[in-house]
Parts: sequence; C-alpha cells; structure tokens
Amino acid sequence: MKPGFFSRITRHCLLGLGLAGACVPALAHAEQADRLVIFDDDGFALAQWMVLKSPHVKVLGFATVSGDFWQKEATAYALRGLEIANKTDVPVVPGATYPLMNSEKLTERWEALYGKLIWKGAWMKKWVEKTNQPLPPYHPADIVPDLPWGNPKLKPSAENAASFMLRMVHQYPGQITIIESGPMTNLALAQKMDPQFASLAKELVYMGGSLNPQQKLNSPAAAQFAREFVNSPRREFNIRFDPEAASIVMHAPWKHILMVPVDPSTETEMSAEFVKDITQSDTPIARIMRKSANNFPLWDEIAAAVWLDPSLIRTSAELYVDVNTAFSAQYGDILSWMEGYQPGLDEQKEKVVLTVDVPRMKALIKELIAQP
Amino acid sequence: MKPGFFSRITRHCLLGLGLAGACVPALAHAEQADRLVIFDDDGFALAQWMVLKSPHVKVLGFATVSGDFWQKEATAYALRGLEIANKTDVPVVPGATYPLMNSEKLTERWEALYGKLIWKGAWMKKWVEKTNQPLPPYHPADIVPDLPWGNPKLKPSAENAASFMLRMVHQYPGQITIIESGPMTNLALAQKMDPQFASLAKELVYMGGSLNPQQKLNSPAAAQFAREFVNSPRREFNIRFDPEAASIVMHAPWKHILMVPVDPSTETEMSAEFVKDITQSDTPIARIMRKSANNFPLWDEIAAAVWLDPSLIRTSAELYVDVNTAFSAQYGDILSWMEGYQPGLDEQKEKVVLTVDVPRMKALIKELIAQP
Repeated sequence: MKPGFFSRITRHCLLGLGLAGACVPALAHAEQADRLVIFDDDGFALAQWMVLKSPHVKVLGFATVSGDFWQKEATAYALRGLEIANKTDVPVVPGATYPLMNSEKLTERWEALYGKLIWKGAWMKKWVEKTNQPLPPYHPADIVPDLPWGNPKLKPSAENAASFMLRMVHQYPGQITIIESGPMTNLALAQKMDPQFASLAKELVYMGGSLNPQQKLNSPAAAQFAREFVNSPRREFNIRFDPEAASIVMHAPWKHILMVPVDPSTETEMSAEFVKDITQSDTPIARIMRKSANNFPLWDEIAAAVWLDPSLIRTSAELYVDVNTAFSAQYGDILSWMEGYQPGLDEQKEKVVLTVDVPRMKALIKELIAQP
Repeated sequence: MKPGFFSRITRHCLLGLGLAGACVPALAHAEQADRLVIFDDDGFALAQWMVLKSPHVKVLGFATVSGDFWQKEATAYALRGLEIANKTDVPVVPGATYPLMNSEKLTERWEALYGKLIWKGAWMKKWVEKTNQPLPPYHPADIVPDLPWGNPKLKPSAENAASFMLRMVHQYPGQITIIESGPMTNLALAQKMDPQFASLAKELVYMGGSLNPQQKLNSPAAAQFAREFVNSPRREFNIRFDPEAASIVMHAPWKHILMVPVDPSTETEMSAEFVKDITQSDTPIARIMRKSANNFPLWDEIAAAVWLDPSLIRTSAELYVDVNTAFSAQYGDILSWMEGYQPGLDEQKEKVVLTVDVPRMKALIKELIAQP
C-alpha cells in the first residue's frame, strides 16, 4: 500500500461502499464526496495541477491576481495550465491588477528609504546581485508575453474574481476551501463587499508570510533563497505585495485558517533529482514538469499538499496572525502572537504549518502527476 | 427670470428646440439631455432629493455605505426617500458595511492614544460634552431602527454597490458622474476590482475632507460645528471613517474630480428660517423638509448644488489631494499640495470648492423642492 494519499481514498471507499476494493476508479463516485475549492493565485504551476488532478476534489474556479506576474499574465498561465491538464471546463476568473494601497512607485520610494527588496514580482527589473534565479521580463500590466508552455486558446470568465468568490460561497455555504497562494487582494475585496464572505467559506488555506525560517538544505539554491529571510525573517512576497489586503483577510471571521509560511519550504527544493523522480509517468503534466527543475522551494505545493492530506503536517502552531501595515521599515512583515498576547482587534487564530513530511509529500505529488 | 437654475434650463431649451418658452415642462425632453449620475452615500436627505428632482438628470441608482449610519440603515433611508419622492423606479444598491482597514475597536484604541473624535457616525455612543446636536441611537450593523419618515416597503437591489457602479460605467463610458457624500469604501472597491473604473466615469464629485475652515456664522450651531475643525482643520468624518478607501480613490485616474470640503459649508445653516423659506411649496419633500431644521451646515447639499449648477462656485482652488493613512495622530487627515509640490505618487489634481453663492444656491434648492 502506498502511503498517505491512496490509503485515504481506500478508507473513504470502505466507509462509503462497505466493500474493500470497490473504489477503482476512485473518480467514479467523485460527485458524492467532492471537496469544493477555489484556487486564487498570481500564477499557475504544479500546486494547481495537484489540486486539479486529485480525486474527490472539485475546483470551482481559478481566480487570478497580480504578484509574481501581472494578473493578465497569471490568467494566461491558468488558461494554458487548464488546457495542458485537459480540464477546460474549469473557469479562470480574472481579479485585481493592482494591490489596494501598495504600488510600484511607492515600493521604489520605500526602497530608497529602507533598502532593497530581494523579489518584487511583476515590478522586478533586476536582481541586486548576480544570481542563478531566472528573471521574468519586466513589462506593463496589460502586456502578456508569449508563455513558455504555448499561449492559451481558452478565454477567461467575464466575471470579476471577487464577485465570483462571493457568488460561490453564497451558493455553497460552509463548503468551499479557498486556497490562496498569491497576494490577498481579491479576498480582501470580496470580504469588504460582503462581510459574510469569510464566514460562508469552509476555510482559508494560504501560502504566505514568514515566521522564523532557517536554511536547511545545503544547495546553492537554498543559500540564494535564504537571502529572502536571513535579514528579514518576517517578510514574504505574497504578503508584502499587498499588506493591507492581507491584514483585511486576517481580520475576517473565517471558520478556519491554515497558514503555510516560508518556514516549511526550506526543507524542499524543485531540484533536477526531485523533478526526475516525480515525473516518471507519461502524462501531459509530467512532460511539462520535466522541464521545471528551477530549484525553487515548494511553496505553493506544500499548501496544496497539506490541504489534500492534512496528515502531511508534521509540526504546526496555533497563533494569532496579522500584518504590519504601517508604512515603515517593516511594512508588510508578519506579526504573530501566542494565545493571550494578541491585541484583540479581531485578528484571527491560524493553524501555522511549521514542518511537513517531505518524503510522503513527494509521493503524493508523484501520484497526482501520474493521474491520467 | 429667476436666477441660475431656470435660466440654465431656458438656455438649454432655446438651444435644443430653437424656441423660447417651449421648454415647459422641462422634464418632457429629459431623455435627450439627461446627465447620468450615481449617488453614493451613508444616508439620504435633501441633497439626494435635489438631484432626483432636477430636470435633465437621470439617477441610475443610489449606492449606500456605512458612515453616519450603518449601510443597512442608510439603505432604508434611501428606499424611503425614493418612496417620498415618488421615484420608486430608481434602484437602491447596498454597498460596504465596514471600512477597509478602520474599525470601531481600532477607533477606540486610536482615541485612547490620540484623543477623542467629535463625531463617529454609526460608532457614536455619546458626545464628549453637552450639545444641542441630536445623537442617533447606537446599535449593531444589522439592526435598522424605525425611521422618522416611516419604514420603506420598497426593497433594495440584490447587486453590490461596487459591482453596480462598475457595470454602469462600462455601460455608459465617459457619461456618469459619481456623487459621493459618504465614506469612499464602495468607490475604492470598484476601483480595485477594475482599474478602469475611475477613467470610465465622467467625473467624481465628493463631499469630504477639510482644508482650513473658518466659523463664519454667529449661531450656536455654527459654534458647535466649529468644534469639528478648530483643533483639527484637516479632519472630516467621511474621509476619517475610511482613510484608506479615500486614498485609493484619490489615486485613481478620474477625468475630473470636484472636491467639496467642509470649508464652503461654514457659510450655510439649515436653520428654521432657511427651512421655512425653501419649503413654501406643497410637495411631499417640502412637507418632510419642514420638520428638518437641524441647524446643520449644508454639506451634501453644496455638493449636489455645484454639480447641478457649477456657476454656484464662487471661489475654488486646483490642488493635489490625498489622505494621511499612517495610523498616527493625524490618521485620516487631508493632505494637499499646490502644483509642483505633490509627491508624484499618482495623487490626482482636484478642483476644490472654497466658497459658493449661498443666496443663489438657496434659490436652486427652493425650486427643486417645489418640483412636483
């Protein structure tokens, strides 16, 4: 028996049908057991494919937002990602192009006061020092460069991401997980349009923020990514790109919040060896992923994985979490408190993932990539 | 010939029909010349009725937001206001219940650090000192107390105000004036959902902010209202209730912005004498208004009046305007700069009304109240 993922499906089948071995193919009774999810992101990659390819999961839509890429480019990636996965029935719903208060100009002024940021996503013109990390081309918000995966034929939804998410949580109250792995602009807009938004979702799972990450791998890439936290352990790009949105979302009355900060990612790396192992199947996703050994930590993939199988969480903490929105040297930094220390301004308790079971997560990823 | 308002209509009729005197009733050819407007507010009163009763104006909808009242109560006032005006075909579209970052709890902590605010709208529990000003009952956001005008039978739209305004500016590009006389939460949400929002409107006219107001009337009420600016000339409630929203809106690419700050209102007062004079007609609005001598300055009415007849503006300035969003003693204060002094972070140039022609404005109001 493979660990984790398939054993969970088997358990489900036993419970659901009372018959061992009756659950192949698992997708056949997906309608009954579907976990509903909306995935909001500033790009599209393995994490999205993992969720798309999971049995018993129904993706209601992919919402897009600016961050690593401008929203339009993120939208193009999502559309192309769905074509590759042969899941063109799932809508891609474009969201915010700009963060609430932060802007490219403001970030340049901030850097002139407080020092350079390592990574600025769509606003990134050059690295401060030489690095092996790739630098996407700098371009305006409404330009979409040709995608390395080929350009999509599929078109995005005409709805706005915030309106879409609101409509969905009203349609399926208490049933929808929102996975956020980009800046939280769309979620903040939805929450402020309708204060019921968060409480109508089942939960929020997000990749963002940083507590006290430590470099754990000895690779050149791990050393490079450690630059992002060694002098600023509380700074992380998704949150720093739109601190006000993140603070709004973290004050909203979610039933449950699962935070996946940078911390657990430092044990992971999308290395050539890792990629070779997870792409042994011959699926369209495996073929694309074979070219994706970028040596990045598995940020978003951890968020997707621990939602798909919470038993992958090895250690976690329960903390009250907020974001520093004062326009100061620590603008966008994560604030966190143990129970009893929080200010009591409606900041929420979050379950914070600190470490994950990397070998089992890798097995899960491999299985999902192999899904037809 | 009465001054101002009707002379403008007459000019229009002459131009439109080539016939003097052919324009009674003026409303008969309203379709051709309608000025389109959406009115967003945290209440509903004379300013809205003025716009509703103006010939050649088509109100596409009244959007509501929390501020002086919670959004639900503001919505009820708007619905009842339309019933009174016999304009029940105009939609009332509910908007945001809470400001973006500010909150009642945060305001209490702010007051504990920096001193008491004079007026807190829906969050107001008591005056600091004895005053003749009325104090609306303090209640939760989802409670709507009985209205003094009677409760409405009309129902609000199912759409959200931000979505509604976005839909309208796309439907009538370059044609819609947005009059904002409450906090700017809905406008900020619309702008952040779609960065084209502001540029698709014709203009923004808002009552909000304060530059350097001086007490100009010698009445007890004027002295009371001077409390609001004598020690804090840059603080005004609409902006202070949601400073981040106001700053977002003031950075948006509007074609034209007309700011009506507190400054011109200090020459005006809804006194018993003023009310008696403007309500000599026997219309439903006149009958309600006869009971409305609250001695308030004519804040929102000035905004409506100068939009209806720009020749009422006596003096104005062109300034770059923004809002202090630092959570400090001056959180929510207006920042303004003359040309050349602005920081250049996309803050916009605004035409700022400093004084208005009060007698002619009074005549306009009287005429509009008398409209059948």
